[in-house]
Amino acid sequence: MADKPNVLRQTDDDARLLARNLVRAARYVALAVIDPTSGFPLASRALMGTDIDGAPVLLTSALSAHTAALIRDGRASILAGEPGKGDPLAHPRISVECQARRITAQEPAHSHIRRRFLARHPKAALYVDFPDFSFFRLTPLQASLNGGFGKAYALTGQDLLITSPACDAVAAMEESAVDHMNSDHGEAAPLYATKLARAPQAAWTICGIDAEGLDLTADDQLVRVNFAEPLASADDLRSTLSALLNQAREI
Amino acid sequence: MADKPNVLRQTDDDARLLARNLVRAARYVALAVIDPTSGFPLASRALMGTDIDGAPVLLTSALSAHTAALIRDGRASILAGEPGKGDPLAHPRISVECQARRITAQEPAHSHIRRRFLARHPKAALYVDFPDFSFFRLTPLQASLNGGFGKAYALTGQDLLITSPACDAVAAMEESAVDHMNSDHGEAAPLYATKLARAPQAAWTICGIDAEGLDLTADDQLVRVNFAEPLASADDLRSTLSALLNQAREI
Repeated sequence: MADKPNVLRQTDDDARLLARNLVRAARYVALAVIDPTSGFPLASRALMGTDIDGAPVLLTSALSAHTAALIRDGRASILAGEPGKGDPLAHPRISVECQARRITAQEPAHSHIRRRFLARHPKAALYVDFPDFSFFRLTPLQASLNGGFGKAYALTGQDLLITSPACDAVAAMEESAVDHMNSDHGEAAPLYATKLARAPQAAWTICGIDAEGLDLTADDQLVRVNFAEPLASADDLRSTLSALLNQAREI
Repeated sequence: MADKPNVLRQTDDDARLLARNLVRAARYVALAVIDPTSGFPLASRALMGTDIDGAPVLLTSALSAHTAALIRDGRASILAGEPGKGDPLAHPRISVECQARRITAQEPAHSHIRRRFLARHPKAALYVDFPDFSFFRLTPLQASLNGGFGKAYALTGQDLLITSPACDAVAAMEESAVDHMNSDHGEAAPLYATKLARAPQAAWTICGIDAEGLDLTADDQLVRVNFAEPLASADDLRSTLSALLNQAREI
């Protein structure tokens, strides 16, 4: 994507962490696809979630031009990371080139993709099952991270994915773990969000758990908290969440 | 761009006005280009200004992938319109497919493009004249306006451009008119912004005047105020600004 090693910094763990957090904490992204009628690149906005391995997931309507484009040509990219105050180019953002694939309701992955997406975007329940709405999973191929002026990095698709062997097992227990934490340990989510992600006080709940961390929502906000280490086994989830809570309480 | 007349509303003056305001009030956009190395569509962020006729103008660094892309293939699109609170897809946004052309320092248009861009983005003065920075003018070809759920419109490039015969004459007098208004009628800009654009109180100044209205900035904010009618002649500018001020005072 960027053939200019002289201006790129060496990708290190901090850059990978920033890149992953930008993608995983995005509620929506700018999506670039190839417009099938004009051949032009087309920029539009789409709601975003993530698959259990961190791959971006979009839910789109067949009435929008980007859906027709993605069905015809799965080459796409997303821009994640919204500017705050001040110069928009001083705020971190990431462009990720991806291969998009439609996930039909018949595929096994559909159920956890749908469940995770709705936990993150509850209002999408109104239209998620309409026949003209589809999920697309975007497998990252390469990415360009811009952490602010002079802080450019080239990343691989693998840099953005969770490769833990525990992914599938975590997906299988995610729904009950999220319900349990929100119902029986409701004090945990606000502590995770405010202490570990330094988010403002709000009605935080956990909306997703994967092998590298958890996603928390409150109203329009979404924040990400990472585990100190990726889970090697889903059996470690309970102790990891407990350790994270102790860590939050000590801050 | 969208071959679905059944879901598109008929483009009317309200839709054109919304579309123009979304583009002209954007400080930055998501830009989609064709990545010259991978052939993938590439989404990135760029600072945006406008030319005197309302065409988007970008200032980009040769160190960024989108500049190399635009030089190789001028097909591009921009996404303008940032979400506020609530569902990101309920907020108006516009995708504009454009043909991009680099504006070299030798071209006559460069001087007013540079001046207008710096008035809008004063901090860009730090790097605008670096040899690796370039302006691109993006001529709109077609656009897809989404005013919120169920409010989709297809627009032509002409719908987004100012076709007044006064454009060149306004460009020639713009700098002195902006200086005069900000220096000698400093009360006007805050009234225009707060009364006519319903913007919050801030240190508003005029940053641009064209044949259809004016752009106002305060810190990170940018708002647009349109004249009741496009100027037929640059001679009408003084009386139009005065009438607008009386209108603002009466609110």
